[in-house]
Amino acid sequence: MSDHTVAEDTRTRLLATALRLFSEHGVGATSLQMIADELGVTKAAVYYHFKTKDEITEAVAAPALQELIARMDEAERQRTRGAQIDHALSGFVDLIVRYRSLIALFNSDPGIMRAIDRSLDGVENFAARMRTLLAGPDPELDAALTVNVLLAGLALAGGAPEQAQLDDETLREHLFDIGRRMLGRPKRRARAGTRSSVADTRA
Amino acid sequence: MSDHTVAEDTRTRLLATALRLFSEHGVGATSLQMIADELGVTKAAVYYHFKTKDEITEAVAAPALQELIARMDEAERQRTRGAQIDHALSGFVDLIVRYRSLIALFNSDPGIMRAIDRSLDGVENFAARMRTLLAGPDPELDAALTVNVLLAGLALAGGAPEQAQLDDETLREHLFDIGRRMLGRPKRRARAGTRSSVADTRA
Repeated sequence: MSDHTVAEDTRTRLLATALRLFSEHGVGATSLQMIADELGVTKAAVYYHFKTKDEITEAVAAPALQELIARMDEAERQRTRGAQIDHALSGFVDLIVRYRSLIALFNSDPGIMRAIDRSLDGVENFAARMRTLLAGPDPELDAALTVNVLLAGLALAGGAPEQAQLDDETLREHLFDIGRRMLGRPKRRARAGTRSSVADTRA
Repeated sequence: MSDHTVAEDTRTRLLATALRLFSEHGVGATSLQMIADELGVTKAAVYYHFKTKDEITEAVAAPALQELIARMDEAERQRTRGAQIDHALSGFVDLIVRYRSLIALFNSDPGIMRAIDRSLDGVENFAARMRTLLAGPDPELDAALTVNVLLAGLALAGGAPEQAQLDDETLREHLFDIGRRMLGRPKRRARAGTRSSVADTRA
Protein backbone atom coordinates (compact mmCIF):
# COMPACT_ATOMS: atom_id res chain seq x y z
CA MET A 1 0.00 0.00 0.00
CA SER A 2 1.34 3.46 -0.88
CA ASP A 3 1.75 6.09 1.85
CA HIS A 4 -1.14 7.96 0.29
CA THR A 5 -3.42 4.95 0.57
CA VAL A 6 -2.36 4.37 4.18
CA ALA A 7 -3.14 8.01 5.01
CA GLU A 8 -6.55 7.78 3.30
CA ASP A 9 -7.29 4.57 5.12
CA THR A 10 -6.36 6.17 8.46
CA ARG A 11 -8.57 9.16 7.68
CA THR A 12 -11.54 6.90 6.92
CA ARG A 13 -11.02 4.85 10.09
CA LEU A 14 -10.52 8.05 12.08
CA LEU A 15 -13.90 9.44 10.97
CA ALA A 16 -15.70 6.17 11.68
CA THR A 17 -14.10 6.01 15.13
CA ALA A 18 -14.93 9.67 15.82
CA LEU A 19 -18.59 9.10 14.90
CA ARG A 20 -18.75 6.10 17.24
CA LEU A 21 -17.12 7.97 20.15
CA PHE A 22 -19.29 11.05 19.52
CA SER A 23 -22.38 8.81 19.63
CA GLU A 24 -21.27 7.14 22.86
CA HIS A 25 -19.98 10.16 24.79
CA GLY A 26 -21.27 13.23 22.96
CA VAL A 27 -19.06 15.57 20.95
CA GLY A 28 -18.19 17.68 23.99
CA ALA A 29 -16.84 14.77 26.04
CA THR A 30 -14.77 13.26 23.19
CA SER A 31 -11.14 14.41 22.94
CA LEU A 32 -8.60 14.06 20.13
CA GLN A 33 -6.60 11.90 22.59
CA MET A 34 -9.55 9.53 23.03
CA ILE A 35 -9.84 9.18 19.24
CA ALA A 36 -6.10 8.50 18.96
CA ASP A 37 -6.20 5.91 21.78
CA GLU A 38 -9.19 4.14 20.24
CA LEU A 39 -7.45 3.96 16.85
CA GLY A 40 -4.17 2.84 18.43
CA VAL A 41 -2.24 5.76 16.91
CA THR A 42 -0.46 8.78 18.38
CA LYS A 43 -2.16 12.13 18.80
CA ALA A 44 0.33 13.42 16.19
CA ALA A 45 -1.17 11.00 13.66
CA VAL A 46 -4.62 12.48 14.32
CA TYR A 47 -3.18 16.01 13.95
CA TYR A 48 -1.79 15.01 10.57
CA HIS A 49 -5.39 14.84 9.35
CA PHE A 50 -7.29 17.30 11.51
CA LYS A 51 -6.15 20.25 13.62
CA THR A 52 -9.28 20.58 15.78
CA LYS A 53 -12.29 18.61 16.90
CA ASP A 54 -14.51 20.98 14.91
CA GLU A 55 -12.69 19.92 11.74
CA ILE A 56 -13.39 16.29 12.60
CA THR A 57 -17.05 17.06 13.34
CA GLU A 58 -17.40 18.76 9.96
CA ALA A 59 -15.68 15.92 8.14
CA VAL A 60 -17.95 13.38 9.85
CA ALA A 61 -21.06 15.22 8.70
CA ALA A 62 -19.81 16.44 5.30
CA PRO A 63 -20.65 13.40 3.10
CA ALA A 64 -24.28 13.37 4.28
CA LEU A 65 -24.72 17.11 3.79
CA GLN A 66 -23.09 17.07 0.34
CA GLU A 67 -25.36 14.24 -0.70
CA LEU A 68 -28.43 16.05 0.53
CA ILE A 69 -27.40 19.18 -1.38
CA ALA A 70 -26.97 17.10 -4.56
CA ARG A 71 -30.47 15.65 -4.06
CA MET A 72 -31.90 19.15 -3.61
CA ASP A 73 -30.19 20.30 -6.83
CA GLU A 74 -31.81 17.35 -8.58
CA ALA A 75 -35.19 18.15 -7.01
CA GLU A 76 -35.05 21.77 -8.16
CA ARG A 77 -34.57 20.60 -11.76
CA GLN A 78 -37.86 18.66 -11.72
CA ARG A 79 -40.60 20.19 -13.86
CA THR A 80 -43.67 19.68 -11.67
CA ARG A 81 -44.19 20.68 -8.03
CA GLY A 82 -45.22 17.11 -7.26
CA ALA A 83 -41.98 15.69 -8.62
CA GLN A 84 -39.96 18.35 -6.78
CA ILE A 85 -41.64 17.44 -3.51
CA ASP A 86 -41.17 13.70 -4.01
CA HIS A 87 -37.50 14.14 -4.95
CA ALA A 88 -36.70 16.40 -2.01
CA LEU A 89 -38.61 14.21 0.45
CA SER A 90 -37.07 10.95 -0.78
CA GLY A 91 -33.61 12.55 -0.63
CA PHE A 92 -34.20 13.59 2.97
CA VAL A 93 -35.60 10.19 3.95
CA ASP A 94 -32.76 8.28 2.21
CA LEU A 95 -30.26 10.30 4.18
CA ILE A 96 -31.97 9.71 7.51
CA VAL A 97 -32.06 5.98 6.88
CA ARG A 98 -28.49 5.61 5.60
CA TYR A 99 -26.86 7.85 8.17
CA ARG A 100 -28.93 6.81 11.17
CA SER A 101 -26.18 7.00 13.76
CA LEU A 102 -25.13 10.43 12.52
CA ILE A 103 -28.76 11.62 12.60
CA ALA A 104 -29.18 10.23 16.12
CA LEU A 105 -26.07 12.18 17.09
CA PHE A 106 -27.46 15.39 15.55
CA ASN A 107 -30.64 14.83 17.53
CA SER A 108 -29.01 14.17 20.87
CA ASP A 109 -26.07 16.55 20.74
CA PRO A 110 -26.59 20.21 19.89
CA GLY A 111 -22.79 20.59 19.86
CA ILE A 112 -22.45 18.91 16.50
CA MET A 113 -25.00 21.20 14.87
CA ARG A 114 -23.28 24.27 16.27
CA ALA A 115 -19.88 23.10 15.02
CA ILE A 116 -21.24 22.48 11.53
CA ASP A 117 -23.21 25.71 11.57
CA ARG A 118 -20.15 27.78 12.42
CA SER A 119 -17.91 26.36 9.76
CA LEU A 120 -19.89 24.95 6.87
CA ASP A 121 -22.01 28.10 6.86
CA GLY A 122 -24.67 26.19 5.06
CA VAL A 123 -26.93 24.42 7.53
CA GLU A 124 -29.33 27.35 7.83
CA ASN A 125 -29.44 27.63 4.07
CA PHE A 126 -29.87 23.92 3.65
CA ALA A 127 -32.87 23.89 5.98
CA ALA A 128 -34.45 26.92 4.28
CA ARG A 129 -33.91 25.38 0.85
CA MET A 130 -35.47 22.08 1.90
CA ARG A 131 -38.46 23.92 3.37
CA THR A 132 -38.95 25.88 0.13
CA LEU A 133 -38.79 22.68 -1.90
CA LEU A 134 -41.45 21.01 0.24
CA ALA A 135 -43.76 23.94 1.04
CA GLY A 136 -43.12 26.20 -1.98
CA PRO A 137 -41.98 29.83 -1.82
CA ASP A 138 -43.84 32.12 0.64
CA PRO A 139 -45.96 29.32 2.10
CA GLU A 140 -49.01 29.90 4.32
CA LEU A 141 -48.32 29.48 8.04
CA ASP A 142 -49.99 26.07 8.11
CA ALA A 143 -47.90 24.73 5.22
CA ALA A 144 -44.68 26.13 6.74
CA LEU A 145 -45.46 24.59 10.14
CA THR A 146 -46.41 21.27 8.56
CA VAL A 147 -43.02 21.07 6.84
CA ASN A 148 -41.22 21.99 10.05
CA VAL A 149 -43.10 19.31 12.01
CA LEU A 150 -42.41 16.81 9.23
CA LEU A 151 -38.66 17.43 8.87
CA ALA A 152 -38.04 17.48 12.62
CA GLY A 153 -40.28 14.45 13.20
CA LEU A 154 -38.79 12.31 10.42
CA ALA A 155 -35.23 13.01 11.56
CA LEU A 156 -35.95 12.50 15.25
CA ALA A 157 -38.15 9.41 14.92
CA GLY A 158 -36.08 7.89 12.09
CA GLY A 159 -32.85 8.19 14.07
CA ALA A 160 -34.36 6.95 17.35
CA PRO A 161 -32.88 3.79 18.91
CA GLU A 162 -36.27 2.04 18.87
CA GLN A 163 -36.17 1.99 15.05
CA ALA A 164 -32.70 0.40 15.02
CA GLN A 165 -34.14 -3.08 14.41
CA LEU A 166 -35.95 -2.01 11.20
CA ASP A 167 -34.09 -2.71 7.96
CA ASP A 168 -33.28 0.27 5.71
CA GLU A 169 -35.84 -0.57 3.04
CA THR A 170 -38.76 -0.88 5.49
CA LEU A 171 -37.89 2.28 7.39
CA ARG A 172 -37.40 4.24 4.14
CA GLU A 173 -40.75 3.16 2.69
CA HIS A 174 -42.70 4.06 5.81
CA LEU A 175 -41.04 7.41 6.43
CA PHE A 176 -41.53 8.36 2.78
CA ASP A 177 -45.22 7.43 2.89
CA ILE A 178 -45.75 9.32 6.15
CA GLY A 179 -44.10 12.38 4.61
CA ARG A 180 -46.21 12.18 1.44
CA ARG A 181 -49.42 11.87 3.47
CA MET A 182 -48.48 14.89 5.57
CA LEU A 183 -47.78 16.92 2.45
CA GLY A 184 -51.08 15.90 0.87
CA ARG A 185 -49.45 13.99 -2.01
CA PRO A 186 -51.65 11.36 -3.71
CA LYS A 187 -51.29 7.69 -2.77
CA ARG A 188 -48.57 5.83 -4.67
CA ARG A 189 -49.64 3.07 -7.04
CA ALA A 190 -49.23 -0.48 -5.76
CA ARG A 191 -45.71 -1.80 -6.00
CA ALA A 192 -44.73 -4.40 -8.61
CA GLY A 193 -42.58 -6.98 -6.86
CA THR A 194 -40.27 -5.93 -4.07
CA ARG A 195 -38.41 -3.03 -5.71
CA SER A 196 -38.37 0.21 -3.79
CA SER A 197 -41.21 2.44 -4.83
CA VAL A 198 -39.26 5.33 -3.30
CA ALA A 199 -36.83 4.80 -6.17
CA ASP A 200 -39.79 4.62 -8.60
CA THR A 201 -40.95 8.09 -7.74
CA ARG A 202 -37.44 9.36 -8.35
CA ALA A 203 -37.30 7.99 -11.89
CA MET B 1 -45.09 37.88 54.78
CA SER B 2 -44.68 34.71 56.85
CA ASP B 3 -41.44 32.74 56.64
CA HIS B 4 -43.35 30.03 54.84
CA THR B 5 -44.52 32.46 52.17
CA VAL B 6 -41.01 33.85 51.75
CA ALA B 7 -39.66 30.33 51.28
CA GLU B 8 -42.37 29.48 48.74
CA ASP B 9 -41.66 32.69 46.89
CA THR B 10 -37.93 31.93 46.81
CA ARG B 11 -38.65 28.42 45.52
CA THR B 12 -40.80 29.78 42.68
CA ARG B 13 -38.21 32.38 41.72
CA LEU B 14 -35.47 29.78 41.99
CA LEU B 15 -37.22 27.47 39.49
CA ALA B 16 -37.89 30.31 37.05
CA THR B 17 -34.25 31.40 37.30
CA ALA B 18 -33.01 27.82 36.87
CA LEU B 19 -35.14 27.36 33.73
CA ARG B 20 -33.74 30.58 32.27
CA LEU B 21 -30.12 29.65 33.05
CA PHE B 22 -30.64 26.09 31.78
CA SER B 23 -32.02 27.54 28.52
CA GLU B 24 -29.10 29.92 28.13
CA HIS B 25 -26.22 27.65 29.12
CA GLY B 26 -27.60 24.11 29.08
CA VAL B 27 -28.20 22.03 32.22
CA GLY B 28 -24.63 20.73 32.29
CA ALA B 29 -23.00 24.16 32.32
CA THR B 30 -25.33 25.63 34.97
CA SER B 31 -24.16 25.34 38.60
CA LEU B 32 -26.06 25.81 41.87
CA GLN B 33 -23.67 28.72 42.50
CA MET B 34 -24.74 30.41 39.25
CA ILE B 35 -28.40 30.04 40.25
CA ALA B 36 -27.65 31.51 43.70
CA ASP B 37 -25.70 34.43 42.18
CA GLU B 38 -28.44 35.18 39.68
CA LEU B 39 -31.06 35.19 42.46
CA GLY B 40 -28.85 37.30 44.74
CA VAL B 41 -28.97 34.69 47.53
CA THR B 42 -26.36 32.44 49.13
CA LYS B 43 -25.72 28.91 47.96
CA ALA B 44 -27.03 27.81 51.38
CA ALA B 45 -30.39 29.38 50.51
CA VAL B 46 -30.53 27.27 47.34
CA TYR B 47 -29.57 24.16 49.37
CA TYR B 48 -32.49 24.89 51.69
CA HIS B 49 -34.80 23.99 48.77
CA PHE B 50 -32.81 21.55 46.67
CA LYS B 51 -29.83 19.33 47.46
CA THR B 52 -28.74 18.65 43.87
CA LYS B 53 -29.10 20.05 40.36
CA ASP B 54 -31.06 16.92 39.41
CA GLU B 55 -33.66 17.82 42.05
CA ILE B 56 -33.96 21.28 40.50
CA THR B 57 -34.23 19.83 37.00
CA GLU B 58 -37.04 17.55 38.14
CA ALA B 59 -38.86 20.37 39.90
CA VAL B 60 -38.60 22.57 36.80
CA ALA B 61 -40.17 19.87 34.62
CA ALA B 62 -42.64 18.43 37.17
CA PRO B 63 -45.64 20.75 36.64
CA ALA B 64 -45.68 20.14 32.88
CA LEU B 65 -45.37 16.36 33.26
CA GLN B 66 -48.06 16.21 35.96
CA GLU B 67 -50.41 18.20 33.77
CA LEU B 68 -49.78 15.95 30.81
CA ILE B 69 -50.48 12.87 32.95
CA ALA B 70 -53.76 14.43 34.09
CA ARG B 71 -54.72 15.07 30.46
CA MET B 72 -53.91 11.46 29.55
CA ASP B 73 -56.08 10.23 32.45
CA GLU B 74 -58.89 12.37 31.08
CA ALA B 75 -58.31 11.08 27.54
CA GLU B 76 -58.46 7.46 28.68
CA ARG B 77 -61.89 8.09 30.20
CA GLN B 78 -63.35 9.16 26.82
CA ARG B 79 -65.81 6.70 25.30
CA THR B 80 -64.85 6.83 21.62
CA ARG B 81 -61.41 6.36 20.03
CA GLY B 82 -61.85 9.67 18.21
CA ALA B 83 -62.47 11.57 21.45
CA GLN B 84 -59.51 9.81 23.11
CA ILE B 85 -57.22 10.84 20.27
CA ASP B 86 -58.43 14.44 20.26
CA HIS B 87 -58.08 14.71 24.04
CA ALA B 88 -54.58 13.25 24.12
CA LEU B 89 -53.43 15.31 21.14
CA SER B 90 -54.84 18.57 22.44
CA GLY B 91 -53.27 17.89 25.84
CA PHE B 92 -49.89 17.36 24.23
CA VAL B 93 -50.22 20.45 22.02
CA ASP B 94 -51.42 22.64 24.93
CA LEU B 95 -48.35 21.65 26.88
CA ILE B 96 -45.93 22.37 24.05
CA VAL B 97 -47.44 25.80 23.57
CA ARG B 98 -47.62 26.79 27.25
CA TYR B 99 -44.21 25.45 28.23
CA ARG B 100 -42.33 26.47 25.08
CA SER B 101 -39.07 27.39 26.76
CA LEU B 102 -39.06 24.15 28.73
CA ILE B 103 -39.81 22.16 25.56
CA ALA B 104 -37.03 23.99 23.69
CA LEU B 105 -34.73 23.02 26.55
CA PHE B 106 -35.81 19.35 26.36
CA ASN B 107 -35.10 19.45 22.63
CA SER B 108 -31.67 21.01 22.86
CA ASP B 109 -30.32 19.40 26.01
CA PRO B 110 -30.42 15.63 26.45
CA GLY B 111 -29.17 16.16 30.02
CA ILE B 112 -32.55 17.29 31.25
CA MET B 113 -34.31 14.22 29.87
CA ARG B 114 -31.77 11.90 31.45
CA ALA B 115 -32.13 13.62 34.82
CA ILE B 116 -35.91 13.31 34.72
CA ASP B 117 -35.72 9.78 33.43
CA ARG B 118 -33.49 8.65 36.29
CA SER B 119 -35.58 10.07 39.05
CA LEU B 120 -39.19 10.46 37.99
CA ASP B 121 -39.09 6.97 36.55
CA GLY B 122 -42.05 7.88 34.39
CA VAL B 123 -40.88 9.43 31.16
CA GLU B 124 -40.65 6.11 29.32
CA ASN B 125 -44.09 5.21 30.59
CA PHE B 126 -45.48 8.59 29.72
CA ALA B 127 -44.26 8.31 26.11
CA ALA B 128 -45.60 4.76 25.75
CA ARG B 129 -48.95 5.78 27.20
CA MET B 130 -49.26 8.74 24.84
CA ARG B 131 -48.38 6.53 21.88
CA THR B 132 -51.05 4.00 22.88
CA LEU B 133 -53.63 6.76 23.21
CA LEU B 134 -52.88 8.08 19.73
CA ALA B 135 -52.16 4.88 17.80
CA GLY B 136 -54.21 2.37 19.82
CA PRO B 137 -52.85 -0.82 21.43
CA ASP B 138 -50.61 -3.03 19.24
CA PRO B 139 -50.55 -0.63 16.29
CA GLU B 140 -49.31 -1.51 12.81
CA LEU B 141 -45.78 -0.32 12.09
CA ASP B 142 -47.02 2.56 9.95
CA ALA B 143 -49.38 3.84 12.66
CA ALA B 144 -46.66 3.53 15.33
CA LEU B 145 -44.13 5.39 13.19
CA THR B 146 -46.66 8.07 12.30
CA VAL B 147 -47.27 8.76 15.99
CA ASN B 148 -43.52 8.86 16.69
CA VAL B 149 -42.94 11.31 13.83
CA LEU B 150 -45.88 13.40 15.01
CA LEU B 151 -44.91 13.63 18.69
CA ALA B 152 -41.26 14.36 17.96
CA GLY B 153 -42.13 16.82 15.19
CA LEU B 154 -44.73 18.76 17.18
CA ALA B 155 -42.42 19.12 20.18
CA LEU B 156 -39.36 20.06 18.14
CA ALA B 157 -41.06 22.43 15.70
CA GLY B 158 -43.39 23.91 18.34
CA GLY B 159 -40.51 24.72 20.68
CA ALA B 160 -38.24 26.09 17.94
CA PRO B 161 -37.10 29.74 18.22
CA GLU B 162 -38.59 30.59 14.81
CA GLN B 163 -42.09 30.04 16.23
CA ALA B 164 -41.43 32.35 19.20
CA GLN B 165 -43.27 35.25 17.51
CA LEU B 166 -46.52 33.26 17.14
CA ASP B 167 -49.10 33.82 19.87
CA ASP B 168 -50.22 30.80 21.88
CA GLU B 169 -53.66 30.54 20.31
CA THR B 170 -52.38 30.56 16.73
CA LEU B 171 -49.62 28.06 17.40
CA ARG B 172 -52.01 25.76 19.30
CA GLU B 173 -54.65 25.76 16.53
CA HIS B 174 -52.13 24.96 13.81
CA LEU B 175 -50.25 22.23 15.68
CA PHE B 176 -53.55 20.61 16.66
CA ASP B 177 -54.81 20.65 13.06
CA ILE B 178 -51.51 19.26 11.75
CA GLY B 179 -51.71 16.47 14.32
CA ARG B 180 -55.31 15.63 13.44
CA ARG B 181 -54.50 15.51 9.73
CA MET B 182 -51.55 13.19 10.37
CA LEU B 183 -53.74 10.89 12.44
CA GLY B 184 -56.44 10.83 9.77
CA ARG B 185 -59.05 12.54 11.96
CA PRO B 186 -61.93 14.23 10.09
CA LYS B 187 -61.83 17.98 9.47
CA ARG B 188 -63.18 20.06 12.33
CA ARG B 189 -66.35 22.06 11.73
CA ALA B 190 -65.88 25.78 11.02
CA ARG B 191 -65.28 27.81 14.13
CA ALA B 192 -67.95 30.13 15.52
CA GLY B 193 -66.26 33.41 16.40
CA THR B 194 -62.72 33.43 17.72
CA ARG B 195 -63.04 30.88 20.52
CA SER B 196 -60.53 28.08 20.49
CA SER B 197 -61.82 25.09 18.62
CA VAL B 198 -59.16 23.03 20.35
CA ALA B 199 -61.20 23.63 23.50
CA ASP B 200 -64.38 22.72 21.57
CA THR B 201 -63.14 19.26 20.76
CA ARG B 202 -62.32 18.72 24.41
CA ALA B 203 -65.87 19.48 25.54
